[in-house]
Amino acid sequence: MKEYLKHHEWQIIEEGLDPHYNKISESVFSIGNGRMGQRANFEEEYSGETLRGSYVAGVYYPDKTRVGWWKNGYPEYFAKVLNAPNWIGIHISIENQKLDLAKCKVEDFTRILDMKTGLLSRSFVATFADGKKVRVESKRFCSMAHGEIGAIRYAITPLNFSGKAFLSIYVDADVVNKDSNYDEKFWEEVYKAASEGKAIVTAQTKKTFFHVTTGMRYVVESEGKKVNYGRINIEQREKFAGNIIQVDLVEGKELVVYKYAAILSSENHPKDQLVAACNKVLDEAFTKKFDKLFEEHAKVWEHKWEECDITIEGDIAAQQGIRFNIFQLTQTYTGEDERLNIGPKGFTGEKYGGSTYWDTEAYCLPFYLSTSEPKVARNLLIYRYKHLEKAIENAKKLGFKDGAAFYPFVTMNGEECHNEWEITFEEIHRTSAMAYAMRDYVEYTGDKNYFTEFGLEVLIGIARFWAQRVNFSAEKNKYVILGVTGPNEYENNVNNNWYTNYLGAWTLRFAQQAIDYVKSADSKRFGEIVSKTNFKEQEETSKWKEIVEKMYYPLDEKRGIILQQDGFMDKEILRVSELKKEDRPINQKWSWDRILRSCFIKQADVLQGIFLFEDDFDIETIRKNYDFYEPLTVHESSLSPCVHVILASKLGYKSSAYDLYLRTARLDLDDYNNDTEEGCHITSMAGTWMSVVKGFGGMRIREGKLYFNPFIPDQWKSYSFRIEFRGRVLKIKVSKDGVETKLESGAPLTIDVKGESVELK
Amino acid sequence: MKEYLKHHEWQIIEEGLDPHYNKISESVFSIGNGRMGQRANFEEEYSGETLRGSYVAGVYYPDKTRVGWWKNGYPEYFAKVLNAPNWIGIHISIENQKLDLAKCKVEDFTRILDMKTGLLSRSFVATFADGKKVRVESKRFCSMAHGEIGAIRYAITPLNFSGKAFLSIYVDADVVNKDSNYDEKFWEEVYKAASEGKAIVTAQTKKTFFHVTTGMRYVVESEGKKVNYGRINIEQREKFAGNIIQVDLVEGKELVVYKYAAILSSENHPKDQLVAACNKVLDEAFTKKFDKLFEEHAKVWEHKWEECDITIEGDIAAQQGIRFNIFQLTQTYTGEDERLNIGPKGFTGEKYGGSTYWDTEAYCLPFYLSTSEPKVARNLLIYRYKHLEKAIENAKKLGFKDGAAFYPFVTMNGEECHNEWEITFEEIHRTSAMAYAMRDYVEYTGDKNYFTEFGLEVLIGIARFWAQRVNFSAEKNKYVILGVTGPNEYENNVNNNWYTNYLGAWTLRFAQQAIDYVKSADSKRFGEIVSKTNFKEQEETSKWKEIVEKMYYPLDEKRGIILQQDGFMDKEILRVSELKKEDRPINQKWSWDRILRSCFIKQADVLQGIFLFEDDFDIETIRKNYDFYEPLTVHESSLSPCVHVILASKLGYKSSAYDLYLRTARLDLDDYNNDTEEGCHITSMAGTWMSVVKGFGGMRIREGKLYFNPFIPDQWKSYSFRIEFRGRVLKIKVSKDGVETKLESGAPLTIDVKGESVELK
Repeated sequence: MKEYLKHHEWQIIEEGLDPHYNKISESVFSIGNGRMGQRANFEEEYSGETLRGSYVAGVYYPDKTRVGWWKNGYPEYFAKVLNAPNWIGIHISIENQKLDLAKCKVEDFTRILDMKTGLLSRSFVATFADGKKVRVESKRFCSMAHGEIGAIRYAITPLNFSGKAFLSIYVDADVVNKDSNYDEKFWEEVYKAASEGKAIVTAQTKKTFFHVTTGMRYVVESEGKKVNYGRINIEQREKFAGNIIQVDLVEGKELVVYKYAAILSSENHPKDQLVAACNKVLDEAFTKKFDKLFEEHAKVWEHKWEECDITIEGDIAAQQGIRFNIFQLTQTYTGEDERLNIGPKGFTGEKYGGSTYWDTEAYCLPFYLSTSEPKVARNLLIYRYKHLEKAIENAKKLGFKDGAAFYPFVTMNGEECHNEWEITFEEIHRTSAMAYAMRDYVEYTGDKNYFTEFGLEVLIGIARFWAQRVNFSAEKNKYVILGVTGPNEYENNVNNNWYTNYLGAWTLRFAQQAIDYVKSADSKRFGEIVSKTNFKEQEETSKWKEIVEKMYYPLDEKRGIILQQDGFMDKEILRVSELKKEDRPINQKWSWDRILRSCFIKQADVLQGIFLFEDDFDIETIRKNYDFYEPLTVHESSLSPCVHVILASKLGYKSSAYDLYLRTARLDLDDYNNDTEEGCHITSMAGTWMSVVKGFGGMRIREGKLYFNPFIPDQWKSYSFRIEFRGRVLKIKVSKDGVETKLESGAPLTIDVKGESVELK
Repeated sequence: MKEYLKHHEWQIIEEGLDPHYNKISESVFSIGNGRMGQRANFEEEYSGETLRGSYVAGVYYPDKTRVGWWKNGYPEYFAKVLNAPNWIGIHISIENQKLDLAKCKVEDFTRILDMKTGLLSRSFVATFADGKKVRVESKRFCSMAHGEIGAIRYAITPLNFSGKAFLSIYVDADVVNKDSNYDEKFWEEVYKAASEGKAIVTAQTKKTFFHVTTGMRYVVESEGKKVNYGRINIEQREKFAGNIIQVDLVEGKELVVYKYAAILSSENHPKDQLVAACNKVLDEAFTKKFDKLFEEHAKVWEHKWEECDITIEGDIAAQQGIRFNIFQLTQTYTGEDERLNIGPKGFTGEKYGGSTYWDTEAYCLPFYLSTSEPKVARNLLIYRYKHLEKAIENAKKLGFKDGAAFYPFVTMNGEECHNEWEITFEEIHRTSAMAYAMRDYVEYTGDKNYFTEFGLEVLIGIARFWAQRVNFSAEKNKYVILGVTGPNEYENNVNNNWYTNYLGAWTLRFAQQAIDYVKSADSKRFGEIVSKTNFKEQEETSKWKEIVEKMYYPLDEKRGIILQQDGFMDKEILRVSELKKEDRPINQKWSWDRILRSCFIKQADVLQGIFLFEDDFDIETIRKNYDFYEPLTVHESSLSPCVHVILASKLGYKSSAYDLYLRTARLDLDDYNNDTEEGCHITSMAGTWMSVVKGFGGMRIREGKLYFNPFIPDQWKSYSFRIEFRGRVLKIKVSKDGVETKLESGAPLTIDVKGESVELK
């Protein structure tokens, strides 16, 4: 865990440039707008450690799977989040000396991300080898108001000299993916043009043939007026277009480059109209100018914060943490485009590839349900509905049949694109995350019609998968599920992972409920579904029922707890507190076999099940399981702490809940898991939001009614959050003195606060 | 299973060229001499499906590990068996038409491998597009008498024309490995020279810097006289040197190219003397000429066959099968060089990389023990003794300490170079194959001094590994071994694989026996070992004893059988006979998870343990386990059938034993597992030998005494084999009428045949 960034309620602040931390900061200070995003790379050249990253939503590359030993059934490719063309570059050279913070002496360096307005600022004083000093101040944002516009204000002031400088201002599609399996570049040039003040490059991805057109216009000003350029070179190289201009620097006078970028993709424009559209966007941006664009952008953020801010009084680290999570989530996914989803690194890094994991359903959905109009969450469900056919194909490849649907672990277009057998083939619980998300959605919104319209088809497919995936153990006289990986990925190929068995059986019951509903609500539509899915209702559902009745659940009678999987108690049972510091994180220190046979748990597994199906268990059962499993948990997945915060809160374990909250809220800010340089943990950020609202706030929905059972950590004075619920907006404020609930808009509503009914008007 | 090759007692015969089978034949018809080997590629150009392969013993390349998701502890590289420079090439061109069997019309094609003399012959008539017809007859061998010499006689006869032809005769180091992880070429040029009739290329491997010098001299003759070349071009390209000569073809007259190759490696010569040495070898070969070289070569084979032939009367397929196995084994490893070992594909393909698997100890050792002087087997043991330090390093990387030794699953130089975690990290039983080999060796030879000189150090290291690898299960009140892969690699990461637990505990007992022996035989040396290994005898051995006493063994009480691993009976128990044909082999048809959770067994697992420790079990236990497990076994490892032949023989299951024998003996000849195109299954060939000698012959050693308990399959008239044993040579012949035993040389000996003592003089 690092403590490198300053605590501040609304800003992330880095003071001083530490090259070892630069890649971490590049991740943390990333900006985006749901359509595109940009790591906090420098505009100028930088020869130090850096991970350059620009990303355009929906644009990916199916990189041929790299694996030592091919196992039958592997997907052909691993979908890479593509590093898109560079639109931020502004290179400076003064008397043949490049401005490069790895080579100049750097003083007064600050990098600030203002979360309130989504603005990244940076300033520093750099001294060249010959003693010349310049001050640089840069600001940039990806417009939330115009999803295809990025804008930069880059100001340079010579402090102890006057003289000529060369500025290279460009767009560049000759970029690499660090994680390219075969060191291949994924972009090919389609078009380029450059003229004075302007450059455009259209590049196309290999194999997937996405086109991305990246354009820029710029102007250089001094004291508000365009300066004269001494010389202009129009630069064109392969996949690259720009200008090199010569300008006069005058000691003490600020010279400002305004660079406006337009980033357009063939996902949103016909390919043959991309360049024209790009020109239009560029002209718009250039005409509006930086300040006006920023004003519009900041206004959107103001509105977003009104919708989903959480305030915490009395604990700046916690306040900064939660805002950082909400900020990143909001700029990753806006819910406007049902073709998009929430990548695990959002627009902050390449790692993990793909865009969609079960994280979306299990972690992100609740955030969007409570902070956006229902359409946003519904779009996330429909995304999976659209992938149903691919999920059926995916199941077929693995030997399933008759319409069984096995959703991929990682996907871009519905196809599986991850290739560790122990995950891809065996971490099967993810296919039921789609069912659970439906339950969540319908409970929250009351929109049961979703079953009729879309949901039931998906549920039939998933239920069929489970009915085929179990097998009957003559030995146990029960149905068992062999060879799986549970949510705790520090176990592979285990038998009867309780979470998986429980979820599988629940899915069969839930599918039955959905059938019953649709049958009674719209028998015609039910008939259509039966015929479309070739559903043999009687035969299939009676099999489901039998499986549910005879499902095997591993238990430890002696300890009165659920068993994570068969044989778990054969392990040497140690606590995480007994581990030496140098052994942590175990996934970076121990060989895989050692991790597998240890008792240590990566992320909630039994407790994940208890979290999802809380009301199925009495409080003592929850306590016993929590008391046994949490101490074995290393929380080396970003998805782990939030679940534990929520359960600890329920159990009244205030101080554990608070500690775990800080861990989830500040996971990236403090680089807990030593991996933030690869990107931020976007999907788990929704878990942070849940930690406050469902954890400390104790929010639950039961049969359409809202319940709150809040407590406040000792370290805090108060906290408040805002909830959208069935057409209302509620504000909840919790302080040492009590709970304030307020209906900000919508029809009157009765809620439950700490066991008492409260009527809100 | 294919039936493509003709049955013959001493020859492998292919009639007609089927391009689909060409790669299989290239493997089957491979030739070698322990120092080098060559697939049965064509001398002339071939644009059809082919896997070009020349191999030089001990020369490898550490190819950077390719894996999608790196797991901590993985070895950095996977050692590749290198495709070495091509020495066979003779390209023919007639009027701008290349002789290429993929393009010409081919008639009368035959390929014959004469196993008696180690000679590969090929003949065919090819018709060019313009109607010109030529007959070609080629013969070649890798000299068993001169390990660095290969010789080719290539004869071409124009059948319906006279005219000019161009012959390109060359050596070429610009070769690729098909399995190169990054499509890289592994050879770099160091030296080349070409002159009339001669060419030499020295190439060096990247990273490992092995030098291989490949030279050739040739002469073209007609009617026994050198012909005049019309034109000679000396050809030199990168890594390539040769001549192109113009010759006159006269209708009906045979033109013969004699090409002599010398293949020398820096493993056997100082690098700066390689070229000189190559010249010398070339001159020797050129002077001796083809016929003389062949005579010397055939003489060595004659001697080899005297030593290790097995004859079978009345069953040509079986006779051909066993000879093919003995032939390949003999040309792969001669036992003369203790730096070498037996690669799983020998000199017949690249697949699997590395040179040394546990196959050597578990399968090959018995063959060499019985057919060679004891030095050969001892060299195989010393090979591992020399790798002890690396095995200790390897264990350290995985978190073991205090001198625990974990031998690699695959190695070239003692380092692990395989990278599936489920094998590399978890298939731990292989480390005890080194201990079992010692037991085998000492029992066979009586040479207990091996413990004192080398063995004990290894045993202490391995025993320490087991003592650390177990853990105490409070739940079971037993020591357990979690997270392993047994010999049956269709199970991964299982708990308490019985074979592994049994072998681990046996190793601890065996190490104790060795300690007791060395202590009493040579206390001074024992003191040295104690101090060298920092052995805390009292403390360590008492821990070993405790583990042995409290080791857990999974059993199925109800069925009275051993359990392959915990939870095995939860599977759906099916028999292989219930599988559909289109599901076989399951490793090519089913996804990995499906294989893992099925009951199907790749190769002997419980039965492997019973095979190794036969005398620990009564016959009824053996029968019950065989009856249960064999029907679940798909034998998709080449190492599987032989173990079953031996047990089936013991149990009197004659017809099963015979069927399984054919499967192992003709595995590659009939391409049972659909993978012979990648190379032959060399190490399992020793298992075929065991099938006859230990299976049908029922040979055992117990306390220094030889036992035979033979039976004869109904299909056979008789079979006979020859055994070296403690300075004697015995011949055993089994026919319907009875058993003949004969002492061919050495001191008198009492053996046991079918329970009766027989004195041999």
